[in-house]
Amino acid sequence: VSQFLVIPNFSEGRDPAVVEAIAEALRSVPGVQLLDVEMDPKHHRSVLTAAGEGEALAEAAFRATAKAAELIDLTRHQGDHPRIGATDVIPFVPVGDAPMTEAVALARSLAERIARELGIPTYLYEEAAIRPDRRSLPAIRKGGFEVLREEVGRPERQPDFGPPALHPTAGATVVGARRPLVAFNVNLRTTDLEVAKAIARTVRESSGGLKNVRAIAVDLSDRGMVQVSMNLVDVDTTPIYLAYEFVEREAAQRGVAVAESEIVGLVGLDAMLAVAARHLRLAGFRSEQVVEKRLWGEGR
Amino acid sequence: VSQFLVIPNFSEGRDPAVVEAIAEALRSVPGVQLLDVEMDPKHHRSVLTAAGEGEALAEAAFRATAKAAELIDLTRHQGDHPRIGATDVIPFVPVGDAPMTEAVALARSLAERIARELGIPTYLYEEAAIRPDRRSLPAIRKGGFEVLREEVGRPERQPDFGPPALHPTAGATVVGARRPLVAFNVNLRTTDLEVAKAIARTVRESSGGLKNVRAIAVDLSDRGMVQVSMNLVDVDTTPIYLAYEFVEREAAQRGVAVAESEIVGLVGLDAMLAVAARHLRLAGFRSEQVVEKRLWGEGR
Repeated sequence: VSQFLVIPNFSEGRDPAVVEAIAEALRSVPGVQLLDVEMDPKHHRSVLTAAGEGEALAEAAFRATAKAAELIDLTRHQGDHPRIGATDVIPFVPVGDAPMTEAVALARSLAERIARELGIPTYLYEEAAIRPDRRSLPAIRKGGFEVLREEVGRPERQPDFGPPALHPTAGATVVGARRPLVAFNVNLRTTDLEVAKAIARTVRESSGGLKNVRAIAVDLSDRGMVQVSMNLVDVDTTPIYLAYEFVEREAAQRGVAVAESEIVGLVGLDAMLAVAARHLRLAGFRSEQVVEKRLWGEGR
Repeated sequence: VSQFLVIPNFSEGRDPAVVEAIAEALRSVPGVQLLDVEMDPKHHRSVLTAAGEGEALAEAAFRATAKAAELIDLTRHQGDHPRIGATDVIPFVPVGDAPMTEAVALARSLAERIARELGIPTYLYEEAAIRPDRRSLPAIRKGGFEVLREEVGRPERQPDFGPPALHPTAGATVVGARRPLVAFNVNLRTTDLEVAKAIARTVRESSGGLKNVRAIAVDLSDRGMVQVSMNLVDVDTTPIYLAYEFVEREAAQRGVAVAESEIVGLVGLDAMLAVAARHLRLAGFRSEQVVEKRLWGEGR
């Protein structure tokens, strides 16, 4: 049976009781495992990660959305991060060989249900988008809750499900399906931030670099380094090693060595095995050869 | 709870009904998963791999040993592979962070029980050995069933458990605990077998190369290649990438390129993650960051 992750983002990052109540709603569905909770007080935002089979996971995400609508009042929310809803965005992500088509179906069905049962208008994004201009999350969230509240009646901003009016306190929610995203940073042995900026520009897709790579430069000069901080948004197509080798080569061109790299948060097994296979020029390797996959992957 | 593998080797590789009966004995213990069955008709030998918690796995290995004693008559067995028993050798291997001390305890307790309940004398090897000269499996099996039958009364060949006389049809069994072994081959772009022989000699521990590496050369000239075929017997200490990079460097010294490599059979998750970490100069990575490990590793 296919397994998925759901990674809902909520506009509450300071009150642990509220985040725990939402987490409890996710956990309340049998078969759903809560894998991770990240509270970010600065952005007043939390990111929860849960895993399970599709239907159970969609039910859990629905219950969490209902709980967030009950406990979060967006009219009193302040934070730097762009957001339009108490439950701001709900991406479904396939695990391993789980089909993207099923993640898309889960997202669309959940978006329809949230609008119908909770009266919260919903938008579909990325792989689940039904309007091509809505693949991009930033385009949907443009201006945040305060601006969307005024503009939601315009044809180009009307929700995919629900009335053209935001929920008074819960706003609107974006639901979608996407590939696993890997947060991957490469630290360089220099304190010259311009080097990291130049490499970030070269590697990122938006300025003509590697497809599926977003990149910014981060100053770590207190540690004697600078960082190329990347989001790899489709590691099936653009693997981690390709991003690493690209940055390493660009750094070498500038006479700078790689100090180390880091993966922040979760990463799929296959993405890591692809890196190992690259290093060893490994032929014919299957992830079923990994003991733990056989051991734990069966019977679930 | 710690998980282990048990990988018993049986002196029957031709009759599927016998191997299936033994496999069924392994599977008959709740909580034990049979992961793999390899029948080798040429060597008249089978290797089964099962996983589970320690006590369940030891019970399963005991039942399989009893079944093999019932169905296999070693006095009528012929095959090239050295063997002394119907159940020839039973290694326990820790999975992930499972402690070696527990694998050793499982091996010693199983060896005592096989001798006491089945009347089959047993020897302890590798990490479970209680005599230093018995760490090595080849030393215990020297001469095979036919020679050991004559020499078992000598002090240096007396079993660790049971009487100094082999079971008339089931012989003796070696039980032990060891690190996970990885079968790793590197194929080189040349048809000159001498190159592979020279590199195998250089890399293997027994002739002064890398610790925990056994290596032979294999002729693949029908595919335009030669192979350095390795057993990596402790990848925690001597990781896969070290063996790969050693062979690659030695080949380059001789003007030969690596074509590809292959991992035969099972490999632990941590061993593969170590290779990926090497490629990316990854700092601070924990295997708990792998989605599948969180997803499948919990609650078991």
